Amino acid sequence: MGAIEDRLLSLGEMLPPYKEPVANYVGCKRSGHLLYVSGRVSPIQGEVGTDLTVAEAQNAAKLALLDILAIVKAEIGDLDKVQGVEKMIGFVRSGRDFTEQPKVIDGASDLLVALYGEVGRHARTATGVAQLPFGAAVQLEMILLLKET
Amino acid sequence: MGAIEDRLLSLGEMLPPYKEPVANYVGCKRSGHLLYVSGRVSPIQGEVGTDLTVAEAQNAAKLALLDILAIVKAEIGDLDKVQGVEKMIGFVRSGRDFTEQPKVIDGASDLLVALYGEVGRHARTATGVAQLPFGAAVQLEMILLLKET
Amino acid sequence: MGAIEDRLLSLGEMLPPYKEPVANYVGCKRSGHLLYVSGRVSPIQGEVGTDLTVAEAQNAAKLALLDILAIVKAEIGDLDKVQGVEKMIGFVRSGRDFTEQPKVIDGASDLLVALYGEVGRHARTATGVAQLPFGAAVQLEMILLLKET
Repeated sequence: MGAIEDRLLSLGEMLPPYKEPVANYVGCKRSGHLLYVSGRVSPIQGEVGTDLTVAEAQNAAKLALLDILAIVKAEIGDLDKVQGVEKMIGFVRSGRDFTEQPKVIDGASDLLVALYGEVGRHARTATGVAQLPFGAAVQLEMILLLKET
Repeated sequence: MGAIEDRLLSLGEMLPPYKEPVANYVGCKRSGHLLYVSGRVSPIQGEVGTDLTVAEAQNAAKLALLDILAIVKAEIGDLDKVQGVEKMIGFVRSGRDFTEQPKVIDGASDLLVALYGEVGRHARTATGVAQLPFGAAVQLEMILLLKET
Repeated sequence: MGAIEDRLLSLGEMLPPYKEPVANYVGCKRSGHLLYVSGRVSPIQGEVGTDLTVAEAQNAAKLALLDILAIVKAEIGDLDKVQGVEKMIGFVRSGRDFTEQPKVIDGASDLLVALYGEVGRHARTATGVAQLPFGAAVQLEMILLLKET
């Protein structure tokens, strides 16, 4: 197990089992040294601000990130091969008056920085949408830079 | 006509006439070997899950893809020059309780894979939005990798 | 001051003070010659089509762009170092029946083209969302290509 996955365990988290995409696409696609990771929804459902609190939605964001990391590991073999987290978009299923999308997506960003330090600091957009696949609370997608091998 | 456009015809589909962007931007922009394609809405309007069924929305997604392919052909001259479909985002104008966005965007993903095979398999995000330009049902944007020439 | 910032002043606009990201991410991240710029919301709040007119929302889009340009300048030192505006996504907080998202985002696109000419013409997606951070009217994110140095 690599250093990043060790750190994940020491933070009390672990990678979930790898889940196949639900339709005719791939979990991630390499493009030179970039890795485009498909959008992944949280296993927690509900509208944030009405059904779920910010803290519950932050946890949903963290769980969506763990699913993404499991996909990335299945693709590249070892999370240590990430050279940079370039970009993340977080879609938050938002109740009508809910405007704290950045706080919700911090649930994923904070873990990325805890795991990867400076390498994990990323450009980011957190936005509010009406609905998400399966009624999920949060959806994340990501662009990673991989180390040359 | 190239092999991809031949295959499109053999699937019973054809490229629509090229349409100019509706505002001060370009239909697609080259960035090294990447081609960023602007978001394109379907010619079919309506809210999915209320005004439109999943099957009707899948057709809307397919039509939006055909518009994108027409733009790409106008830019690069021949659809055979695509080396990879790297990433697609699909925005589905969703009724309040509609959560099958992935099924809708399959209407575009399935055609990409039918046309391009492994090359057409892409990272993807399908998400649900409240409203789209012109009241369209579906909006797609894409990143393509082009062959070296 | 560089030529682009001169032109900005001659258009009667100026860069706002640089604002730090509100959470655990960075304002922009370099990836080779690409610069991924984080989503930035307009300092103007409200739902477009209900609380705000198209003209007011175009102004919001322009102000969000100015914030982004301030971030880019803080990162790369001089706006003249931009070689291309590759891609922009504009999220418009849209009232239920508002479908003129492209016109709104023109408030940013038009300024980019006025500043940079052909270099500023970009691939773009304008979409409608239910809610945005802080209740903002518009949110923009961008990918820039930087000149080799």
